[in-house]
Amino acid sequence: MKGRRSNRSIAVIHGPNLNLLGAREPAVYGLMTLRDVNAAIRTLCEQLGCTVTTEQHNGEGEMIDAVQKAAALGSAIVINPGALAHYSYALRDALAAAAVPKVEVHLTNTQAREPFRRRSVTAAAVDGTVGGFGVDSYLLAIRAVAARHDSRS
Amino acid sequence: MKGRRSNRSIAVIHGPNLNLLGAREPAVYGLMTLRDVNAAIRTLCEQLGCTVTTEQHNGEGEMIDAVQKAAALGSAIVINPGALAHYSYALRDALAAAAVPKVEVHLTNTQAREPFRRRSVTAAAVDGTVGGFGVDSYLLAIRAVAARHDSRS
Amino acid sequence: MKGRRSNRSIAVIHGPNLNLLGAREPAVYGLMTLRDVNAAIRTLCEQLGCTVTTEQHNGEGEMIDAVQKAAALGSAIVINPGALAHYSYALRDALAAAAVPKVEVHLTNTQAREPFRRRSVTAAAVDGTVGGFGVDSYLLAIRAVAARHDSRS
Amino acid sequence: MKGRRSNRSIAVIHGPNLNLLGAREPAVYGLMTLRDVNAAIRTLCEQLGCTVTTEQHNGEGEMIDAVQKAAALGSAIVINPGALAHYSYALRDALAAAAVPKVEVHLTNTQAREPFRRRSVTAAAVDGTVGGFGVDSYLLAIRAVAARHDSRS
Amino acid sequence: MKGRRSNRSIAVIHGPNLNLLGAREPAVYGLMTLRDVNAAIRTLCEQLGCTVTTEQHNGEGEMIDAVQKAAALGSAIVINPGALAHYSYALRDALAAAAVPKVEVHLTNTQAREPFRRRSVTAAAVDGTVGGFGVDSYLLAIRAVAARHDSRS
Amino acid sequence: MKGRRSNRSIAVIHGPNLNLLGAREPAVYGLMTLRDVNAAIRTLCEQLGCTVTTEQHNGEGEMIDAVQKAAALGSAIVINPGALAHYSYALRDALAAAAVPKVEVHLTNTQAREPFRRRSVTAAAVDGTVGGFGVDSYLLAIRAVAARHDSRS
Amino acid sequence: MKGRRSNRSIAVIHGPNLNLLGAREPAVYGLMTLRDVNAAIRTLCEQLGCTVTTEQHNGEGEMIDAVQKAAALGSAIVINPGALAHYSYALRDALAAAAVPKVEVHLTNTQAREPFRRRSVTAAAVDGTVGGFGVDSYLLAIRAVAARHDSRS
Amino acid sequence: MKGRRSNRSIAVIHGPNLNLLGAREPAVYGLMTLRDVNAAIRTLCEQLGCTVTTEQHNGEGEMIDAVQKAAALGSAIVINPGALAHYSYALRDALAAAAVPKVEVHLTNTQAREPFRRRSVTAAAVDGTVGGFGVDSYLLAIRAVAARHDSRS
Amino acid sequence: MKGRRSNRSIAVIHGPNLNLLGAREPAVYGLMTLRDVNAAIRTLCEQLGCTVTTEQHNGEGEMIDAVQKAAALGSAIVINPGALAHYSYALRDALAAAAVPKVEVHLTNTQAREPFRRRSVTAAAVDGTVGGFGVDSYLLAIRAVAARHDSRS
Amino acid sequence: MKGRRSNRSIAVIHGPNLNLLGAREPAVYGLMTLRDVNAAIRTLCEQLGCTVTTEQHNGEGEMIDAVQKAAALGSAIVINPGALAHYSYALRDALAAAAVPKVEVHLTNTQAREPFRRRSVTAAAVDGTVGGFGVDSYLLAIRAVAARHDSRS
Amino acid sequence: MKGRRSNRSIAVIHGPNLNLLGAREPAVYGLMTLRDVNAAIRTLCEQLGCTVTTEQHNGEGEMIDAVQKAAALGSAIVINPGALAHYSYALRDALAAAAVPKVEVHLTNTQAREPFRRRSVTAAAVDGTVGGFGVDSYLLAIRAVAARHDSRS
Amino acid sequence: MKGRRSNRSIAVIHGPNLNLLGAREPAVYGLMTLRDVNAAIRTLCEQLGCTVTTEQHNGEGEMIDAVQKAAALGSAIVINPGALAHYSYALRDALAAAAVPKVEVHLTNTQAREPFRRRSVTAAAVDGTVGGFGVDSYLLAIRAVAARHDSRS
Repeated sequence: MKGRRSNRSIAVIHGPNLNLLGAREPAVYGLMTLRDVNAAIRTLCEQLGCTVTTEQHNGEGEMIDAVQKAAALGSAIVINPGALAHYSYALRDALAAAAVPKVEVHLTNTQAREPFRRRSVTAAAVDGTVGGFGVDSYLLAIRAVAARHDSRS
Repeated sequence: MKGRRSNRSIAVIHGPNLNLLGAREPAVYGLMTLRDVNAAIRTLCEQLGCTVTTEQHNGEGEMIDAVQKAAALGSAIVINPGALAHYSYALRDALAAAAVPKVEVHLTNTQAREPFRRRSVTAAAVDGTVGGFGVDSYLLAIRAVAARHDSRS
Repeated sequence: MKGRRSNRSIAVIHGPNLNLLGAREPAVYGLMTLRDVNAAIRTLCEQLGCTVTTEQHNGEGEMIDAVQKAAALGSAIVINPGALAHYSYALRDALAAAAVPKVEVHLTNTQAREPFRRRSVTAAAVDGTVGGFGVDSYLLAIRAVAARHDSRS
Repeated sequence: MKGRRSNRSIAVIHGPNLNLLGAREPAVYGLMTLRDVNAAIRTLCEQLGCTVTTEQHNGEGEMIDAVQKAAALGSAIVINPGALAHYSYALRDALAAAAVPKVEVHLTNTQAREPFRRRSVTAAAVDGTVGGFGVDSYLLAIRAVAARHDSRS
Repeated sequence: MKGRRSNRSIAVIHGPNLNLLGAREPAVYGLMTLRDVNAAIRTLCEQLGCTVTTEQHNGEGEMIDAVQKAAALGSAIVINPGALAHYSYALRDALAAAAVPKVEVHLTNTQAREPFRRRSVTAAAVDGTVGGFGVDSYLLAIRAVAARHDSRS
Repeated sequence: MKGRRSNRSIAVIHGPNLNLLGAREPAVYGLMTLRDVNAAIRTLCEQLGCTVTTEQHNGEGEMIDAVQKAAALGSAIVINPGALAHYSYALRDALAAAAVPKVEVHLTNTQAREPFRRRSVTAAAVDGTVGGFGVDSYLLAIRAVAARHDSRS
Repeated sequence: MKGRRSNRSIAVIHGPNLNLLGAREPAVYGLMTLRDVNAAIRTLCEQLGCTVTTEQHNGEGEMIDAVQKAAALGSAIVINPGALAHYSYALRDALAAAAVPKVEVHLTNTQAREPFRRRSVTAAAVDGTVGGFGVDSYLLAIRAVAARHDSRS
Repeated sequence: MKGRRSNRSIAVIHGPNLNLLGAREPAVYGLMTLRDVNAAIRTLCEQLGCTVTTEQHNGEGEMIDAVQKAAALGSAIVINPGALAHYSYALRDALAAAAVPKVEVHLTNTQAREPFRRRSVTAAAVDGTVGGFGVDSYLLAIRAVAARHDSRS
Repeated sequence: MKGRRSNRSIAVIHGPNLNLLGAREPAVYGLMTLRDVNAAIRTLCEQLGCTVTTEQHNGEGEMIDAVQKAAALGSAIVINPGALAHYSYALRDALAAAAVPKVEVHLTNTQAREPFRRRSVTAAAVDGTVGGFGVDSYLLAIRAVAARHDSRS
Repeated sequence: MKGRRSNRSIAVIHGPNLNLLGAREPAVYGLMTLRDVNAAIRTLCEQLGCTVTTEQHNGEGEMIDAVQKAAALGSAIVINPGALAHYSYALRDALAAAAVPKVEVHLTNTQAREPFRRRSVTAAAVDGTVGGFGVDSYLLAIRAVAARHDSRS
Repeated sequence: MKGRRSNRSIAVIHGPNLNLLGAREPAVYGLMTLRDVNAAIRTLCEQLGCTVTTEQHNGEGEMIDAVQKAAALGSAIVINPGALAHYSYALRDALAAAAVPKVEVHLTNTQAREPFRRRSVTAAAVDGTVGGFGVDSYLLAIRAVAARHDSRS
Repeated sequence: MKGRRSNRSIAVIHGPNLNLLGAREPAVYGLMTLRDVNAAIRTLCEQLGCTVTTEQHNGEGEMIDAVQKAAALGSAIVINPGALAHYSYALRDALAAAAVPKVEVHLTNTQAREPFRRRSVTAAAVDGTVGGFGVDSYLLAIRAVAARHDSRS
């Protein structure tokens, strides 16, 4: 990630259906709501001295807009593409074009679920991935990004 | 579908390009317009004592929004995903999260068309499917949903 | 289905293992017996003014015979090929040769079960398909056929 | 085919749906009926000094019985497996066990039709194949078998 | 196999072409006839105090009938599906519905033969499999079933 | 393209991430911005006596809207679907329904890049394709469309 | 083959390596030389009142030339493409463009040999195929073509 | 194409069966003959101030020779590989080694035809592709090449 | 197994993770420990008059050593390769080189579990397989081997 | 991970070739040695109040031993399987049997490398995965495990 | 290679595009020209007491001719099929028919290049292969062939 | 191999089951023992002025150790991975990390054997391969390595 523009801001981008967290198949996704997740993210970011924004979109186009906007601002990206991870080459292209630190996050261990979830076409366009730890997946990703900020400052 | 919230309302959700019905490849899709189809749906719903809403979207995000909204209202879902059926895992996730009666509908017999139309990734997330009967596909799906209402009341 | 011979008779043809209905894996296939299903079919046909015959066969050859006989009589066909749907190209050919209205029916939503059940080689040779509604799959198929009778008379 | 028992008798075995010849999709299969085909076969066999039997079955089991019976009698086999050619490994095993001259025949050029017709699992168990010449496919196969008789006597 | 109905009777069901044993490709299948095999089976069953029936069918439908009948009688099933093992999902469904001890048997080691013999679609619906030991495959399967009888009595 | 409505107007539709042109991976996509590309397009259209509109969308739904609108106006379509080319059957359906001259354009030679870029599901629904010439891909496509106008007038 | 130009001449075209017949792997291809095969062909053609030419080429381009020349002369084509059958789409295109009776011939039963020989890409562009009968494959093909001449005159 | 030798000459190389243009399947390939196509090419080249040569070959080896010769002369290459596009890795290697501007041309939209035509193994070795516009495909390719000449001079 | 060296000794070789038996996923593998299994094996071997050794290894190299050693001693081999069955071609080679009676054993019916367990690359190198009967799988394999001893003495 | 035995100890298990860290392809794997990585791990564990052991093995058997030992001790597992991730079903089984918190770690983003690295057969048997962050991948995994300890105490 | 005719002559046959050696992609293929390679081959052959001929062809037919000619002369064959290795079953057949020592040579390590280069359909028809050593690949192949001469004399 | 450390020492590493040479399937692998092979290797190395070590391992871990050790010593590597070639990505990684001349050797022509032997995952990580010449495969590989020594000194 040499030569990338970066600052201490982070954009957390939640993909399709993540607004249903807590209500949607709680046996799979847990009981925390997206509001709870975002609160936990904000708490950690404050501890780490980062600013953070959070947003959620059901539309692929809006997801691409969000990635482009974050990259334009120089914010690191923590993205949970939801099911778009499995087929959205357009989102992949948006991530590939984003010259900022970027992490793909999944709440569940997608390798242990249906076969179609084992392939992520977006993962090849980020720096790293974290999955399987519920809300902690996000928090670890935040730390990963913050560590990169630290090593640059 | 035990324990699902349900009432006598039905949301009919038409996917991409269905607004072109009547004009688009009439040899394949017939001469009725979407307006005609919706009128037939409304007539049958009145007969069966159900309320019904109809909507059409070209965007995947809007389709997901519509499914989430219907599920939140406890309305049964009759959805024609159009070509999204063949790749939209995000729409599939939205349907999987919708704890209401739900039916996938196709105007044509997709099994008898191009190979890519033989696979529906959304069909695994609904209760049943109806296809190949033109506008009657919708009307049969309405009946399927109404029968479920009746068996619960 | 232009120019097809057709009358108000319907042949319902049940495939292999459907004689076990009610006893076979009730969690998957429900508690109604094939006798119950046939009774429901007959009741609906009477309401719709159609004559109906029902038969069940475990053998592929007998299934083909039944399809040929129905087509020769000008009866519409409502067929549940059971597992033959997944590999019997001979049954597919019999259906393709039958110039009558014809519907493939499944009790369960085969798209949501084992991978081998997701493909139907016979479905490409019928007019439409209905699946996932238990006995209602048959009743909806009867209606689909009857509607076609009506539109011709 | 060294050491095989053989005499001047030939068993012609027609597979599923061939009883429909003349009526079934004449644009694909032509206007001759199975009765016509069998008459032409008998005429040629008389010319060639062979005895011949003809039979048709829709059932895989009956097809296997017929192959076993012909082999037991030492008759050469001219078989049109119909769609069974594409999946019936049991028929293939029956043919593999038949130590008599044996030819697979198709009315149409199966290589030029749907993809599933391009593969014949039975063809690997016969001596040769003829396809695409309508009734002449049978007559050429009869000649092939008769030539083998001649070269042995 | 908890809660299964079971008694000390066993149904041995031989599939297509096994009536040719001894005559068919003896280098592959050995010199014993089916009559010899059945005699060996009966001798062992007497030693083990089990009653046994044996039958052979070339037809898939008859194989399914035999499985259904055995299951209805509470007999354990020892089945050699022959080549039906490789594609008959209908036979698989019959076996899946049979709530009795059930074993799939092959004379040869199918893993060491043609590629199409490496996959058994029926094996997933039985309790266990034995293959590669010639007639001993049957005898070992009989013992497996008898051991299960013993552990229940 | 016989019998298609057509006039001398052209709609140029740019897909996801093309708004980043010039900034995004310039080694791959070159240094011209989308504004530059559109200017070159307009200059050529003036020379050729065609009117032209240009638009860019990150959302699949908006892309479909744009195709439907152009077709309704009778404008020829020059579309760069971006990564949607590789999976959007919904966009393909929109193009298939558009009875106007239509060309798919790519800046790069997609055949020489990652494997997933080698397949275009939308290309089968247009009249022709041009790729690999950077901005010239658009200009050649404009000429292709204009030539068709000329041959009709 | 309606409307095709045709006369009583036949072009027999042998593909790569067939000049080695008799010497090349005689266990597979037999002991007759190509000269012997051509003699047998000429004898039969004389009997049937057809003129015939024979040629052999190792080069794909020469094979295409030969097909084009035969078609230009209105000669029926009997072609053994040798291994070109398995990949030469260019030869397939030449055959597809040849509006004369045309038959693909193989000495051996290619379905019973290596997997790559089971697929013929050229077979879809001819009227019919004959394989597995050694030199008789050619003679049967000659008869097939002559029969077509007869039915036209 | 930095650093490539180039001048204002262009070699147009037509592949197998293109000598049949006008006669071969005119519904697919149109009514113009290859002579007509070459005339149109020459007219445009004169307008653009380029010299041009045209040649056609049915043989893969001759196609490779032609590519090597053009590259040695520093001529840009406009090549229609015909069906060789789908399997000739040797032609691909020849194109890859040609350090001149190079374009692959197809008369038809190969993406909308048989599945085997959707893959071009040669396309990865050229600068860009044009297809689907009949003779205009060639003319657009000429323009693409000329534009590259202009930008270098 | 003609001409193989053999005596009344048997080597039972347990593969990776089988040391965990009883503790590891008891719902899948049962409650008996490896010690229990080995005791049952020894008891049966005594009854059958065979000597037996048992060993367990987690390493592929040690498994190969064990197979080589048993073969060198002329002992029959009863091997449960554990998960190595699904990919260890090196173990397969060791078994193929072992000219002694050899049986592959699995506790569970691997055909009814995850897809990757349906393929055994080692099974093609043994004489026969037994699977699905828990500890009885081993005991049946012992009997299979002992029967072979008997038929030789 | 309900009901799992767990304590504040962690076993870090490095797979094949990780002993070469720092020396092996530093452009891919970085300049830190395994000693450096282990030091960083120990520092973090001390901060988090966890005990930790580290080990490295080139052998699959030794990797399985290490997983079994850690599970027996109730230690959480942080494992980098190296290339074993892509085929070692035996290691997967060992992980599946380990009823402790367990995380798979990769230094690089395996999704962005060679195709064979995109599939991890071991990942389905752990709780979560972290990859792409160099040594930070380990540190984040340590945190993930520690968080689980905290939520249990 | 028992019973093969052989003498101390060697035919070195270079396939398509090898005439470009030295000029073609020198980073991949090195700086030696084909003339240089042939000189080195001749020098070694003199040392080893073998006569040698060298030839190069771009055409598949000419390559087959060359193989047939060498075999007819009893010369050993050292062949670099170039890209024909990946699809030319006709060349494979020519090599299979050549009863002389024969070696396939590649300048580069084809396993480490594009996926299509990893498969050689011709390699199965030669005695051995050498690849990856530039001109030394040829020299090693010459030695391999000479060693075989020695062991026969 | 620019910049690699290298000296005149060579490590010959034999993989699983090669200790059985001479005894194991002599029809496939020949009659020489591993001791014989190593003697021949040593003789040649003396002639060429190279030092050499030989070792054989059945375990993948030990193979990796051996590769690492050789690379650390700056010895060239001649490795016969045995069946590990077909799946051991861990061994591939070890070879990829070894910055010394390295050659993969096979006794047999693996391209002419079972399908699984046609793919070598390790071959992509070496400089070149030699196979099919029995013990001469090793000797040629030694020469290849020695030639590289010479060209550096």
